[in-house]
Amino acid sequence: MSRLQTELSEQPVALARLLERQRERAVEIGALFRRADVDYVLIASRGSSSNAARYAQYLLGRAHRVPVVFATPSLYTLYEQPPRLSGALVIGISQSGESPDVGAVVEEARRQGRPTIALTNEPASPLGRAAEAVLPLEAGEERAVAATKTYLNSLGAIALLFAASTGDDGAHAELERMPEAVTAQLERSAVDLARLETLAPIEGGTVVARGVNYGTAYEIALKVRELSGLLFEAYSAADLMHGPVAAVAPGWPVIAVAPSGPALESMAGAIRAVAARGARLTVIADDAALLDQAELPLPLLPGVPEWLSPLVAVLPGQLVALRLAELRGADVDSPGGLSKVTLTR
Amino acid sequence: MSRLQTELSEQPVALARLLERQRERAVEIGALFRRADVDYVLIASRGSSSNAARYAQYLLGRAHRVPVVFATPSLYTLYEQPPRLSGALVIGISQSGESPDVGAVVEEARRQGRPTIALTNEPASPLGRAAEAVLPLEAGEERAVAATKTYLNSLGAIALLFAASTGDDGAHAELERMPEAVTAQLERSAVDLARLETLAPIEGGTVVARGVNYGTAYEIALKVRELSGLLFEAYSAADLMHGPVAAVAPGWPVIAVAPSGPALESMAGAIRAVAARGARLTVIADDAALLDQAELPLPLLPGVPEWLSPLVAVLPGQLVALRLAELRGADVDSPGGLSKVTLTR
Repeated sequence: MSRLQTELSEQPVALARLLERQRERAVEIGALFRRADVDYVLIASRGSSSNAARYAQYLLGRAHRVPVVFATPSLYTLYEQPPRLSGALVIGISQSGESPDVGAVVEEARRQGRPTIALTNEPASPLGRAAEAVLPLEAGEERAVAATKTYLNSLGAIALLFAASTGDDGAHAELERMPEAVTAQLERSAVDLARLETLAPIEGGTVVARGVNYGTAYEIALKVRELSGLLFEAYSAADLMHGPVAAVAPGWPVIAVAPSGPALESMAGAIRAVAARGARLTVIADDAALLDQAELPLPLLPGVPEWLSPLVAVLPGQLVALRLAELRGADVDSPGGLSKVTLTR
Repeated sequence: MSRLQTELSEQPVALARLLERQRERAVEIGALFRRADVDYVLIASRGSSSNAARYAQYLLGRAHRVPVVFATPSLYTLYEQPPRLSGALVIGISQSGESPDVGAVVEEARRQGRPTIALTNEPASPLGRAAEAVLPLEAGEERAVAATKTYLNSLGAIALLFAASTGDDGAHAELERMPEAVTAQLERSAVDLARLETLAPIEGGTVVARGVNYGTAYEIALKVRELSGLLFEAYSAADLMHGPVAAVAPGWPVIAVAPSGPALESMAGAIRAVAARGARLTVIADDAALLDQAELPLPLLPGVPEWLSPLVAVLPGQLVALRLAELRGADVDSPGGLSKVTLTR
């Protein structure tokens, strides 16, 4: 079995470990969000961590009713003109904690006396040391280049911060059912995926989502791209309609990530639009009517609340990425020229 | 001549008109940025306007030393959970001023008593009416679906706001030389582009930039994609290295946008990385050493300061987009199934 496959299947255990060990810490860290001088949350991240950051953008935005937005690292590094960070709570997300640009944003915030939080799998890393508070991801060692369990646990850490902020035991109870839901979803999707062979071979594809699963689309596209070198890309359903849909030609694969919730109608519109252009549809959803429109339906098991749906919706995508890479004979543990830790300034 | 070609060649005149008519207004609006209660700038936009917004992110970030960040419109519309906007100055950018999601963010900010600015070509539009202050783009009527002169004038409006903020006549003098620089660049690139036929036919490509030209990469990719339906995508040089470079296979076209400035070294690294993977390189740059590495060098004329380079660096990209579409026999005024105004919630 490849390391990637091992790590992918360790996700329920890794998530359970995070929830068990870090619940109290998340409550402590959650208090930083309620500081009277916090008007917005600024996140620095790269790669898979940026996709997790998009989840934070929706979830923490809804929890605290403040904008959760992305930093522009090159202003801190290349341009050496860091902004004033009055009003900001700054979060750095990096599994390795090594990327200098992510660290630079957190260091600058610390220097300015702003509250800082690191979400990292390596609390002793430069990022972990730079931040005032650290929420360890508890994913265990991850050796495959493509992030799986560190990604899922980044989402888990964000969900813990959300649950802590609501002060509501209901949210925690929902979150604690997720390791079991992840296990069940991995098993179910592995069965559904047997039909993937009929979709391959392909040259690339477009992944579409919106709202709380916006980052899920990016993570699935990145995973397919990293593992197989296929040209996958991601769009929000809204951005896709502002021009980029022009490149969706007859036969082009589109993966729609559409769990039930406020974004469903917008997603149904995007699915109609790409279907009208002759796209070949894979649909990750729990809604029977949407699944019926897919050449490859990948059902989500019922019972997961919308706010937690990104923790399961990414799983069929990870399996698609793994299987496409295997079908192309790629080395999934060390895909084409990538390294586990990328040091960008 | 197509409408698109006409509008593309009207850009110097449209830019000159904006600079002449709106300089005073930009100074008035610029004062909003200096309000003591403004800790950050929040921008709502879609499509080409989002690419202009990335220019604002760097330029206004450097001018005012505050984070300039992007709103998450679906929290205002689909989720109906708009955040508290204390500390925010809110800018909506939309050439038509019609997109409901962009309008929703500005309306909410106005309701909360925050300062709001609209950059729009239609001051009487819903967005124009919603904002406290309007900076008209003065691009004249734009009828081709793909934005050219409204995009350039969105950059021009942002540059005007930057120049106003510096209170420095030097910046204004540099900006006022840009209509002439745009004319010269369009002429020069039209000549260089004769060699494009040797690059076509292609299936798609990746556009890479960083720093102040990050949005230029997105705009060039969007323009090619809209006009020809080719699968073009954009990445920052840093994000590309965190995984997505895996899909850059031998022979894959890469357009690097690399004017001299603080981002040049990072771009040179990305160019080395994609060249090592066998990419076919188009380089938009003024640096002779970088241009020498390109199969299709598209030189930028000297004398444009880095902060204004996005106003000229996009031009060879627009011409590439137009020419690729012509070579594919596409209708450049009404490309495949797109409409001029897209109404997303």
